[in-house]
Amino acid sequence: MKDRNMENFTFFNPTKIEFGTGKEQLIGQHLSEHGIKKVLLCYGSERIKRDGLFDIVSKSLSEKGIELVECGGIVSNPVLSKVREGIALARADQVDAILSVGGGSVLDSVKAIAAGVCHDGDVWDLFVGKANIESALPLFAILTLAATGSEMNPGAVVTNDETKEKFFIHAPCLFPKVSIVDPALMQGVSRDYLVYSASDVIAHLIEVYFTAAVHPKLQSRLVESLINTVIETTEALLADPADYDARAQFAWAATLALNGLTFSGAAGFSYPNHAIEHSLSALFNVPHGAGLSVVVPAWMKWYLDRNPAQFERFAENVFGVESAENGIAALESWYEKIGTPTQLPQLGIKEADLPAILENVQKNVRIFGIAETYTPEVVTIILKNAL
Amino acid sequence: MKDRNMENFTFFNPTKIEFGTGKEQLIGQHLSEHGIKKVLLCYGSERIKRDGLFDIVSKSLSEKGIELVECGGIVSNPVLSKVREGIALARADQVDAILSVGGGSVLDSVKAIAAGVCHDGDVWDLFVGKANIESALPLFAILTLAATGSEMNPGAVVTNDETKEKFFIHAPCLFPKVSIVDPALMQGVSRDYLVYSASDVIAHLIEVYFTAAVHPKLQSRLVESLINTVIETTEALLADPADYDARAQFAWAATLALNGLTFSGAAGFSYPNHAIEHSLSALFNVPHGAGLSVVVPAWMKWYLDRNPAQFERFAENVFGVESAENGIAALESWYEKIGTPTQLPQLGIKEADLPAILENVQKNVRIFGIAETYTPEVVTIILKNAL
Repeated sequence: MKDRNMENFTFFNPTKIEFGTGKEQLIGQHLSEHGIKKVLLCYGSERIKRDGLFDIVSKSLSEKGIELVECGGIVSNPVLSKVREGIALARADQVDAILSVGGGSVLDSVKAIAAGVCHDGDVWDLFVGKANIESALPLFAILTLAATGSEMNPGAVVTNDETKEKFFIHAPCLFPKVSIVDPALMQGVSRDYLVYSASDVIAHLIEVYFTAAVHPKLQSRLVESLINTVIETTEALLADPADYDARAQFAWAATLALNGLTFSGAAGFSYPNHAIEHSLSALFNVPHGAGLSVVVPAWMKWYLDRNPAQFERFAENVFGVESAENGIAALESWYEKIGTPTQLPQLGIKEADLPAILENVQKNVRIFGIAETYTPEVVTIILKNAL
Repeated sequence: MKDRNMENFTFFNPTKIEFGTGKEQLIGQHLSEHGIKKVLLCYGSERIKRDGLFDIVSKSLSEKGIELVECGGIVSNPVLSKVREGIALARADQVDAILSVGGGSVLDSVKAIAAGVCHDGDVWDLFVGKANIESALPLFAILTLAATGSEMNPGAVVTNDETKEKFFIHAPCLFPKVSIVDPALMQGVSRDYLVYSASDVIAHLIEVYFTAAVHPKLQSRLVESLINTVIETTEALLADPADYDARAQFAWAATLALNGLTFSGAAGFSYPNHAIEHSLSALFNVPHGAGLSVVVPAWMKWYLDRNPAQFERFAENVFGVESAENGIAALESWYEKIGTPTQLPQLGIKEADLPAILENVQKNVRIFGIAETYTPEVVTIILKNAL
């Protein structure tokens, strides 16, 4: 028997996805089917009130006799203080579910609120491993930005605005019951957030693809299919933001990128680019995807020699070029072409900021379980690749 | 806005997959977590007693205090009479779940039993649309042959051995709660059944790929990734049946081929090859996959002009050849190379049998909703391509 390159795994993903135009009108029906009577409706800016989405949602809820309590003002790179506010509100109003109307930041906040309501102590305990997530209020989502994949997974990332720690939680009870993904709701996404989202999705796809010690070829093929879709549809959307088809395929690729599909059977993988980027977001509040398009090529140049065959595969199957180095250069050029940053100075980060980043990163690499490899020396080499 | 080529859809697949070596030992634990006290254990031949699998399962059940009632002797192309026997047994012994230990035929029988137990009338009512499937006993599976994808979908096909009708059922309550897929249990699969399985999986993948009126390019890419995996791993297994990695990737590709992933966003598709093949299995009891490797190339030659662009795509991305016709020829040659039939006479079916087949097919094409296109004249043309 050959060495195994497909590991044992469990695949379980009970989230129901309602995908397509007009699906947000079903939210009341879905909540009703789950027996929900009163919901905490979380959102970001007041844009959902101006563009009519809030009205559609509240009408759909009221038709099913479901009360709503509002919790607006969630920002991107969502913060712990707002999560605590949501928990207090959910408790005071005794809601029996949480509904996210927004992108990944709102949804991640909702997951933290849903878990926090059911935890006796402080919600941050759940992020730092002081307590386990035993249960959560049922949570639902209407997605307005496709990027994080949070709509079909049980994870969430939140920044502690006091300590500047950007940490994550993960528990089976945090799968959304139903996520509504309507590409038409995403047509107003700005050019900047579109390209940051593309960078986020690609990062989700390549972390496991390059770092896994055990990686089935089937999974490599699926990952390449998704990356090629992201590249193609991003370009189509930059040319024509009203291209529904491109918007839809982009959104579904984003969901599939982090719903468990692409890492089934893989083993020994890690998320070094996320570990490093979370420090950039936490310290400088840069958009996560913009941080990733800086970190990823810089990391690739350092990591290349550790998995040259996979880098050659990537070069050929994604960009149709021949060497590993050319594949990395092609990704970096593509990021430049679509207009997402590839160098730290573009994020306003200078060499003098490195010590602060290095200090912050040390917590992340411990939490991501990769502190042994990603020493301050190694992270310095990687970050200097982007200076 | 361009014409849409991604349609609205709902994706929901709550089956938990336990994938990998030794996972069958978890069956007692999973049943116990679902509160099961007594289970109907369905299987095919007595092979599972000789090879030790039955002992592993019964030990795992007894460790959790779960009683088992045996229902063996389920044959491939499973028959209604056996399903009725299982229903009677399940009722008499008041089991609270059904467990399939076997391949797709056992599992499909289990689905019919699980639904039949909860239906007051005859179970065949559920197949012919005389009654709806409202509920079913919870069902679980340990898979010993990868082909049908039944382990992660809510459908089942059974042949009425009196009327020679091979019909299907489909209902959300028929998703297995847990399916255990251990590639090591499949190492004893015969060379014949391996290649029939490859043909079955490829048929599942190409039906939607070629027939859909609306088909997102993302889905085409995923389908091609899976077909390429099936081709590569089948060849690897023919060379070395003990190649665990190939066995594992083949199995996971078979599951993904029919779990909803590949047709999300597609619309206006149909299953003509299955509609036609079901008549071959029903009348001549040929292995489903062997029937499909005969029907598929014959159908392709007839269908080609209706979707030439997709056939060119298939030729290039699966076989690396240039024209649509060459792609079909390459698939047919590949079937011949691996040793699955491509002509009706290889199944013992002669031109004189066509009238009986045509008569039987008429019921299938009605049930599959494609009677308007697949008239007797058209089916004759297709079948004559395989004579």
